[in-house]
Order: sequence, then structure tokens, then C-alpha cells
Amino acid sequence: MAGEGRKNERRGTGRKLVPLRGGGAVRQGVVHLVGAGPGDPELLTVKALRLLQSADVIVHDRLAPPAILALASPQARLIDVGKRKSRHTLPQDDINRLLIALAQEGLTVVRLKGGDPFVFGRGGEELLACRAAGVEVHGVPGVTAALAAAAGAGAPLTHRGLAQSVTFVTGHAASGAEPDLDWPALARANHTVVVYMGLSTAPAVAGRLIEAGRAGSTPVLLIENASRPDERRVLTSLIELPSAAQALEGPVLLVIGEVAALADAQGADLQAAAEAAAWRLA
Amino acid sequence: MAGEGRKNERRGTGRKLVPLRGGGAVRQGVVHLVGAGPGDPELLTVKALRLLQSADVIVHDRLAPPAILALASPQARLIDVGKRKSRHTLPQDDINRLLIALAQEGLTVVRLKGGDPFVFGRGGEELLACRAAGVEVHGVPGVTAALAAAAGAGAPLTHRGLAQSVTFVTGHAASGAEPDLDWPALARANHTVVVYMGLSTAPAVAGRLIEAGRAGSTPVLLIENASRPDERRVLTSLIELPSAAQALEGPVLLVIGEVAALADAQGADLQAAAEAAAWRLA
Repeated sequence: MAGEGRKNERRGTGRKLVPLRGGGAVRQGVVHLVGAGPGDPELLTVKALRLLQSADVIVHDRLAPPAILALASPQARLIDVGKRKSRHTLPQDDINRLLIALAQEGLTVVRLKGGDPFVFGRGGEELLACRAAGVEVHGVPGVTAALAAAAGAGAPLTHRGLAQSVTFVTGHAASGAEPDLDWPALARANHTVVVYMGLSTAPAVAGRLIEAGRAGSTPVLLIENASRPDERRVLTSLIELPSAAQALEGPVLLVIGEVAALADAQGADLQAAAEAAAWRLA
Repeated sequence: MAGEGRKNERRGTGRKLVPLRGGGAVRQGVVHLVGAGPGDPELLTVKALRLLQSADVIVHDRLAPPAILALASPQARLIDVGKRKSRHTLPQDDINRLLIALAQEGLTVVRLKGGDPFVFGRGGEELLACRAAGVEVHGVPGVTAALAAAAGAGAPLTHRGLAQSVTFVTGHAASGAEPDLDWPALARANHTVVVYMGLSTAPAVAGRLIEAGRAGSTPVLLIENASRPDERRVLTSLIELPSAAQALEGPVLLVIGEVAALADAQGADLQAAAEAAAWRLA
């Protein structure tokens, strides 16, 4: 029976035909938790592109780039489960239920996540929900924003003599609160810290790291909209981070550590953003 | 002149024609430091694939998968700069010089790196060398092995309630030595640690983390050849890690933390590897 299912599998979708006792067959659905990368459609993996082009349904967030959604099969149904402005918490349970229900209809479902599904993507929750419901589920890795921001800026995350490890944390916290992070561990030298969703908590991050012993002169690179046409970068220091952050407003990643100073300072965006920051702070 | 260069740019290769005073033009070369992802050709980014197909020269390591090199343009020259068995240190300076010389010949060079070029890839060193020589150089991010291993195994690197951050370290150390890592910081709870090249140092890693306070029962997932056809996984605990590691021999990634226990335990490979481990230890 496993052999029969495999024979009928349509390449790439994981869709199977399961024989019924009375003859005929039902299609078994599947959920792919797919990392879409940081926004540039060229930073999709070949596998993510193939799945987008073969899925029956694509479940995506509000900020999914139109240029990426445009790559979906014209027959595919697109479902936006993005957070609405009027709603402060993402209805994760509703999304889980939706994925399960679609797969149980026999559909091939792509759950498209920004970056990588298993780095601050809540992909783990969707994975466990599908497994608990007996729905076939697969993870497809993607280029997480930290990698794209670093490559785009020419600032390696690890570098001999400067950083022998890198930690990803999220600046996101319950409404208004400071993120509950292990500041002493993050303040160690010879180590790069990348803060996702770091804009609103930049002042707290700077203050706590300095309190915990990281030098105020530690370089910090801010990257807004990494890999997108409107990407902007600002190079600053930990002590200047709170004021530098005021120049930006979109999704921002902070790269904290000596490697940040290796960023290509010749980028026009960098200069423009620095000027914007200087202007705003004047 | 910048406008002129841009007009003559061949899409995707960054190759430019620069007017000479006496008429005519020389081609300016460029180096792309390209992340090839973890091994599965489908986990190349679309951009990496395009650059592979349009490069004049591809400079790659010994372990670059043949299925990925096969995607290069038939006209491209392939140069293997991989570490030879007889040579214990990679001649990084020679590689830097080679990249610069090729670009100075006016060629479009793809320096293909496993995973992501700026996570334990020494891409930063090549980047700085090119910049210092006045050679145009760009980074192209890739799916680093940790992301591929986690997605393949269904073990999220961050997960609400289990891990709010993730740190990548390398188990590689000067010949025979223990890696010089910040064990107390790595031993904190609610945190995933991924050790690249973790096989030979697995006993040291386990011992140091337990000494520093991490529970011996902490789950550890070992992934050998992540994303490749011969991928194998073993789920164990920190205290059992030294013996479990004996079942594997290829490039191994360790995922240490509570999230490791979420790995899909139904994979045939997992079972086979566990049996192999039991057999070897018997």
C-alpha cells in the first residue's frame, strides 16, 4: 500500500492517492511549511519556488511580498492570514485549524513564512498541530533575514578573530514590555548578536547590553527591509543605537558586534540613512 | 561613467565594460561569494542558481556536491581549491589571491561556499581581501546547515516556551584542541545551541555543557549530511552524546536543547541510525 501511494505521488507536491476499500481513492493532503526568504524573490530556494508553483492553496502573512505571491500557480488559492491592524494578537490556533482543514480536504498546502519557518516563525507550532491531527507535514528551510542582511551589507556573522559564534534573538516582547533575554550571555565579547524585530526595543537592548558589560563602542548595523528594493542600513555603535534607530521605521534587524564594522560603508543607502538620521536628530 | 558602466552591465553577472582613454574597453571582473546551501541542489537559492549558470569561473571546495556543480554553465571553468588530505591547513591566502587574479582578468567569478558564506565559511576573509585589492565583491546568502537540518528533522530552532534564541558555534578547533567556547553562556536554559562540525568534539561539548550547568537529560539531535540523500539522524541526550556520536562519521551538526525532542522520530533514518549506534556500542 505504501508502494501504491508512492507510485501515484505527483512529483513535488507530496499528494498521494490512497485506495479505498470499495474502490476509488481519496487524495491525502499535505502541508509544507515553506521559508520564503527575506523578501527578494531571487532568495527563494528552488524548492520553495517549485512548491509555490504546484500548491493548491498558499496560506501567507500580510507582509508576504507581492512579487513572491505572483510566482504561485494561477490556479492556486491565496489565503492571507496576516495580522490585521485592528487585532493585536495573531490567531495562531485559527491558522493551525485552517492548515489542517485544507489538508484534510486533500489539498497540497504551502504555508509561506518569511525567512525560515523555524527561526522566530512559529512554524514549530503549526508543525506540531499538523502532526497531532495526523496531517502529513514537511519543513522547507529558507534564508533567514540575518543571513540576507549580513550578505547584503558585506558583514560576516562569524569572522576569525572577531566573532566565533552568532546568536539570534527576537526583540519582540509582550505589549510594551522589554524582551526577556539573557543579557550577560549576550554581552560576551567575540560573539555576534542578531536581534530580529529590533526597532522598538533598540533602546532597551542597548541599555541592557551595556549594563551587562558590552562596550558602548561596540559597532551595530541596523538593516531595514533586508534584501528588498527599499533596504536601508545605518552603522552606529551600541551607545548611539537609541538615537540611530529613530531614522528607521520598517522591519529592522540589528547586527551587534565587531563584525558590523566590516559592513560595506560605500553603499549609497548607508550614507542616505545616516543623513536621514542626522536630519531627524537635528 | 557610472551610468555608462551600468548600461553595459550584463544582467546578473555584474560584469562591466569600462571605457579606456584610447578607446576600446576592458571588462571589470567581479567576485560573488555564493552560499550553495547544505547540499540538496533544490536548496540553492534562485539567485545562486542564476550565478552558477552565468559565471565564467566557479571556485569550489572539495566537498561541493557534484549535482550542484553540474548546474554550472558548460562553458564555465571549475576550480577545486578543496583541502587535500595531505595538507592540514587550507591555504586561505592562496584562495584569496586566486579570486583576485581571476577577477582582475575581467572574469565573473563565483566562489561557491557550503551553506551560507558568512556563517563559518571564511567568506569574510575573502570579502576583505577582494575589497583591499579593489575588486568588486558581493555576498549571496545561502541556507546554512542548521536551518536545513532543523527543517528536515522537524525540530524548530526557536519555539515558544522551549527556546527563545539560538546560537551557532563551531566545534572545529586547532588540531586536537577543545573548541574555546563560552560554556556558561551556552549552558543557559531556554536556548538552542547548534554546533557545526560537531562530531570530533562531541565528547568535549557534552562534558563542558554539563559542567557549566546544562542538564544531562537535555535532548540532542545529531544530523549527518543534512539534506543529502545519505542524511542520518540520531536523537540522544547530552549525557549520552559521546557514545551516540560514535554511530556517525560524516559532517555532523549537533542541535542541543529541548527543541531537539520535537524532531520527527518516525523517520526511518533515525531508527536505522539508532540501531547502528546500538550495534556499534554493543
